[in-house]
Amino acid sequence: MQDSPIFLPLREQRERLRAGTLTATALAEAAVAAYQQRGKHDHAYLTWNGEQALAMAKAADAVLAQGGDAGALMGLAVSIKDIYAVTGLPTYAGSSQRLPKRWERPGPVVGTLLKQLPSVMGKTHSVEFAFGGLGTNAHWGAPRNPWDAHQHRTPGGSSSGAGVSLVGGTASLALGTDTAGSVRIPASMTGVAGLKTTAGRWSTEQIVPLSSTLDTPGLLARRVDDLAFAFDALDGGLSGQDDRMPATPTLAGLTFGVPETFFWDDCSPGIAETVRGAIKQLEAAGARIVTLELPGIDEAYELFKLGGVAAPELAAFLNTELPEMIDSLDPNVAARVKAADDMPAWEYVRRRTVLDSLAASAAARMADVDAVLTPTVAITPPTIESLQPEGAYPKANMHALRNTVIANFLGLCALTLPVGKDAAGMPVGLQVLAGPWQDASLLAIGQAIENELGSGLEILGQPPAI
Amino acid sequence: MQDSPIFLPLREQRERLRAGTLTATALAEAAVAAYQQRGKHDHAYLTWNGEQALAMAKAADAVLAQGGDAGALMGLAVSIKDIYAVTGLPTYAGSSQRLPKRWERPGPVVGTLLKQLPSVMGKTHSVEFAFGGLGTNAHWGAPRNPWDAHQHRTPGGSSSGAGVSLVGGTASLALGTDTAGSVRIPASMTGVAGLKTTAGRWSTEQIVPLSSTLDTPGLLARRVDDLAFAFDALDGGLSGQDDRMPATPTLAGLTFGVPETFFWDDCSPGIAETVRGAIKQLEAAGARIVTLELPGIDEAYELFKLGGVAAPELAAFLNTELPEMIDSLDPNVAARVKAADDMPAWEYVRRRTVLDSLAASAAARMADVDAVLTPTVAITPPTIESLQPEGAYPKANMHALRNTVIANFLGLCALTLPVGKDAAGMPVGLQVLAGPWQDASLLAIGQAIENELGSGLEILGQPPAI
Repeated sequence: MQDSPIFLPLREQRERLRAGTLTATALAEAAVAAYQQRGKHDHAYLTWNGEQALAMAKAADAVLAQGGDAGALMGLAVSIKDIYAVTGLPTYAGSSQRLPKRWERPGPVVGTLLKQLPSVMGKTHSVEFAFGGLGTNAHWGAPRNPWDAHQHRTPGGSSSGAGVSLVGGTASLALGTDTAGSVRIPASMTGVAGLKTTAGRWSTEQIVPLSSTLDTPGLLARRVDDLAFAFDALDGGLSGQDDRMPATPTLAGLTFGVPETFFWDDCSPGIAETVRGAIKQLEAAGARIVTLELPGIDEAYELFKLGGVAAPELAAFLNTELPEMIDSLDPNVAARVKAADDMPAWEYVRRRTVLDSLAASAAARMADVDAVLTPTVAITPPTIESLQPEGAYPKANMHALRNTVIANFLGLCALTLPVGKDAAGMPVGLQVLAGPWQDASLLAIGQAIENELGSGLEILGQPPAI
Repeated sequence: MQDSPIFLPLREQRERLRAGTLTATALAEAAVAAYQQRGKHDHAYLTWNGEQALAMAKAADAVLAQGGDAGALMGLAVSIKDIYAVTGLPTYAGSSQRLPKRWERPGPVVGTLLKQLPSVMGKTHSVEFAFGGLGTNAHWGAPRNPWDAHQHRTPGGSSSGAGVSLVGGTASLALGTDTAGSVRIPASMTGVAGLKTTAGRWSTEQIVPLSSTLDTPGLLARRVDDLAFAFDALDGGLSGQDDRMPATPTLAGLTFGVPETFFWDDCSPGIAETVRGAIKQLEAAGARIVTLELPGIDEAYELFKLGGVAAPELAAFLNTELPEMIDSLDPNVAARVKAADDMPAWEYVRRRTVLDSLAASAAARMADVDAVLTPTVAITPPTIESLQPEGAYPKANMHALRNTVIANFLGLCALTLPVGKDAAGMPVGLQVLAGPWQDASLLAIGQAIENELGSGLEILGQPPAI
């Protein structure tokens, strides 16, 4: 499967498209073929858009043939999480009903993407209203984690179809969103790279909101280098920042902070070991490793266990814009929304104040190092079956989100890249955290790490055949 | 009284101080003399700082004598509302107890002021935690509106001592804050000029918070020109903006929007008439007057009547930082804080969303004109006595805040300047509204208006003798 051109580095795809040794049509056809082969099994898409994507690819090829260039992402196969509004495609946001038409008008992120004429292969599954870290969905079922051929393990969430679309060969780039880990968890669990941007850097307009405070658009791709390429293609128009991608630094010039506590507790067998092994390899290659505890981490996690700020923010959106959908919510989502009913307004204000103060302390501390390294997710992707008993889902969900939510609550940007497999044979991610608005240099640091450790494709090999 | 040098335009005070024809000591002595004469009667100050201010003035004179210059506000007599932290002076924020020491460490606004070596004459009274528009205070009593020698009328609030300090001759510049009208109402009711800055432009750090969303620092002075002078001296270091004060425009080049509805309803006798007269005079002088309704005004006022966002924001602060003070709150403040108890968190989130959308629509509409003109306050300052009957205070308070709160809820900046007297002989203010971050050009427009209509001193004459 990995000999499909879809698996080539994005930079190489772009060059070949312009050199005439690859066509957008060939990429879209490869995606369609992959979908026909394993689309039903993977279950990554809520809305498959193969036919339209092929038509768009042909149009892109016609433009390319005449020397036209709509941008770096032209002709590339892209999947979009179902909570982004996209022209011509329904938006369910993982719910049981199609949302009103206004949720089919693209916002800035999708608009910036579409202008470059990519082939949009379809809309990938999401946890309902993105409110969950495991990728389950009572209405549509969970995509299948491609790394276990026997058992149905969760693909991570809430961008549950995003990573699966990459591994299954139907896309080379996936748009996700991250409020507490919803890009990084599915990336880590499916063995791809993922970027959570700094909150406020990319507009969340026309993305169905979970948390107006913490939602962030993000990217998933096979390599950190692909993320950097796509970030570079999108960021200028979105952030108003002029920081073009810096040159990839040498590891010998980098200082990584590694916390001794919190992130390593209660990891599933093989996860902490694999991440520590990766960090040792970086150290051997010249990186300086220092102990660094993130400030306010206990307070942040306490706040997360209380429910953070997402529940009342989602409740405000649903009560105001989609009141008729509240009764049909996925039970796991309904339970979390309902938990907000008893929260008084002043307590919400208090939590926002705590978040502001956590972010201020964290930004100061992060200035001491180039980045902080931790395991991305503490647990191996659980089987769907294991989540059925009463109380199992909330426990596993909290555990899966524990290491990622810290970045959201502390106002950081973050990425994950695959660094090996755990004792269950499932992918393990290394989380790289950087200070607010350091997204571009974070990606450059990620490239340096990837250059040393190898990309996910090299480390993990092929997923099992279906 | 008005022959005190304290009443000179700030620009003239600055020039004379540098020319050696006026000293900071003379200014501080004039303030002390005024305080001795009518300080008890006016009751503007919770903490009088005359002795320290004289010492500071002497130091400033010593610096000036050697050609030193600490900034435009050097040697000027300034009063500061008691919710700003100021080194060496207690902060009560209008409450019954001195707040913890951390509330005596200046934030950016006071820091920027103090660096210029003004004479801080004292801390002026505030409604408790700035939560009220009339200036009453169950713990300390209300300052007396100087324009009625017979009855104790409210001075407006919550910066209740700020305007009185100017009229009484103890300061040439007063720091206030404005969350729903708390600079403009006391300015209007005491016949001085007041500026409410755009929210977010000047930091509210180390100002005891009422509403973390809507609090804004602001200025009161005898003339719009004085406001412009002081704004120019403070803004550079605070806003990070580089827009120095623009030249005063000519009225013939300005277009003013005047709403036909809302602001004119239920005005006390003489208020609407006086403001309409001022607008007619501006039109006769060449200004273009067009009808312009502010968008979302009914929604904004509906939200205000529901309680807006301040109550849960103040409750969060008190519950977190000063829980022991809740039981001793002024009954009128306690009632408003208590109203937040039953507000669910999601409703607060909804209100914040409404505010964001109101601000976006208003900013767009304001682009059609240079400024919008309305009466500042719809009612004549009520007597303290009239507020005693059950239900009288909340009704009068809402009525007083009605016209000013619109600027806060719509994200605008605003100023007020005196334009005459109402049927009760009390000062009437003209409110001038401009789009967000237009503070500097708003002040320039205000100067053009003041040049045509005359300053408050010219229009209102002397307040009655005590």
